[in-house]
Amino acid sequence: MTRPRIPNYCGKPISSRSRYARLAGHRCFDLKGHPGTCSEFPYLEHLGSEAPKVRQKIIRDATMTTGAAWASDDAGPNRILRWAMLESDQVLRRFGIDMASLKPGVVAKLREKAAPYEACMLVAQKLTALVYGMANAPDVPSDVRSYLASATGAPISVTTCQVCLLPLDFNLFAAARRGKAEIETAHANPRLHTHDNVGFAHRECNIAQGAMTLDEFYGWLRDILARVDRSRGR
Amino acid sequence: MTRPRIPNYCGKPISSRSRYARLAGHRCFDLKGHPGTCSEFPYLEHLGSEAPKVRQKIIRDATMTTGAAWASDDAGPNRILRWAMLESDQVLRRFGIDMASLKPGVVAKLREKAAPYEACMLVAQKLTALVYGMANAPDVPSDVRSYLASATGAPISVTTCQVCLLPLDFNLFAAARRGKAEIETAHANPRLHTHDNVGFAHRECNIAQGAMTLDEFYGWLRDILARVDRSRGR
Repeated sequence: MTRPRIPNYCGKPISSRSRYARLAGHRCFDLKGHPGTCSEFPYLEHLGSEAPKVRQKIIRDATMTTGAAWASDDAGPNRILRWAMLESDQVLRRFGIDMASLKPGVVAKLREKAAPYEACMLVAQKLTALVYGMANAPDVPSDVRSYLASATGAPISVTTCQVCLLPLDFNLFAAARRGKAEIETAHANPRLHTHDNVGFAHRECNIAQGAMTLDEFYGWLRDILARVDRSRGR
Repeated sequence: MTRPRIPNYCGKPISSRSRYARLAGHRCFDLKGHPGTCSEFPYLEHLGSEAPKVRQKIIRDATMTTGAAWASDDAGPNRILRWAMLESDQVLRRFGIDMASLKPGVVAKLREKAAPYEACMLVAQKLTALVYGMANAPDVPSDVRSYLASATGAPISVTTCQVCLLPLDFNLFAAARRGKAEIETAHANPRLHTHDNVGFAHRECNIAQGAMTLDEFYGWLRDILARVDRSRGR
């Protein structure tokens, strides 16, 4: 289990009212000796006051499986905690999730989104740092800046689309076409939910990458262009 | 209006029981002096006996707007005749289609799929020829072969994915993941439904191309790879 890289964090257990609370050791990620109540996402407080939906998206994408691509009647639960997907079918039945009733493809899709609680917490920190690095993002308060720098091991810098490498604009969070956000949480390897592997991408870039890893995707593009060039006699 | 390039075709009006029948001049596309009843898709009879679903797909994709990408409660009619989308809102109201009640984005999506009856008929012929050019496709009867050669202006040859240019296999029609066919009707310019512009593509290729024209798509890929190479110091 990866340990958060936050130096000197509080680490006190946090009680959760969620029915899934006992599946993870929820903890306080505020700094040791912090004033006020414990919090899992203290570094998201400022962003939450500036852009509550972006805060929600970070927590949701970091901790929940996604479901947009397979939303249908028989697709099963649309979003579920990623660490719940590490549990056996038997344990999940106790939580009212009947994996056996889902189609094999749906089960595979859910299971491949599994990630331990700790990894999800690191992903949330990484995503928050990336948001502050976007053009037109809110100014990051100095305490949040230094928290995120220690947590992610790097200072906040210019955030680019993980796929096409163009700079990302914070305003894309508010933009949506046909109900789909223009900016998505992206995975260099779609089956690996770790901070090293996670970033943001344009929706169309993320869609184009599909189920391929980024390296597979770039190789695929190179092959396509080579065939196009050959067919056009270049 | 483009005229079909079929030499010496029957051309007799065909009566249709569809409520939309009077929106198009349905005609017989069999050869002049053909035996039996008139037919809009005589060249699809053989394929229909070998692979009825592929025949249906050709007719559906050639003549109907698509809807998969925008299926939702408020997305409006999921499939509608392409030539109906050339009619005014006022005329469509008489057919029970209330365009004004749809979201502007949905209207735009439907309207951009509009195509005249003649163009759709040529598309169906083109798609049929492409199917017979796929690896593992049924053998094409000689009369169908010569019909399609005159209709499309070219002999049946090896059919490749319109996007990635790899050969397409007929068996992909029967393959599906999560209810989505592995092979899709594709448009070099997504807003132009003409025989010159239409082909087949792998589903993932078609999705990657998205709303871009093929040339825009290839340019986009080149730009991405150039940035990737720069970022990796190549």
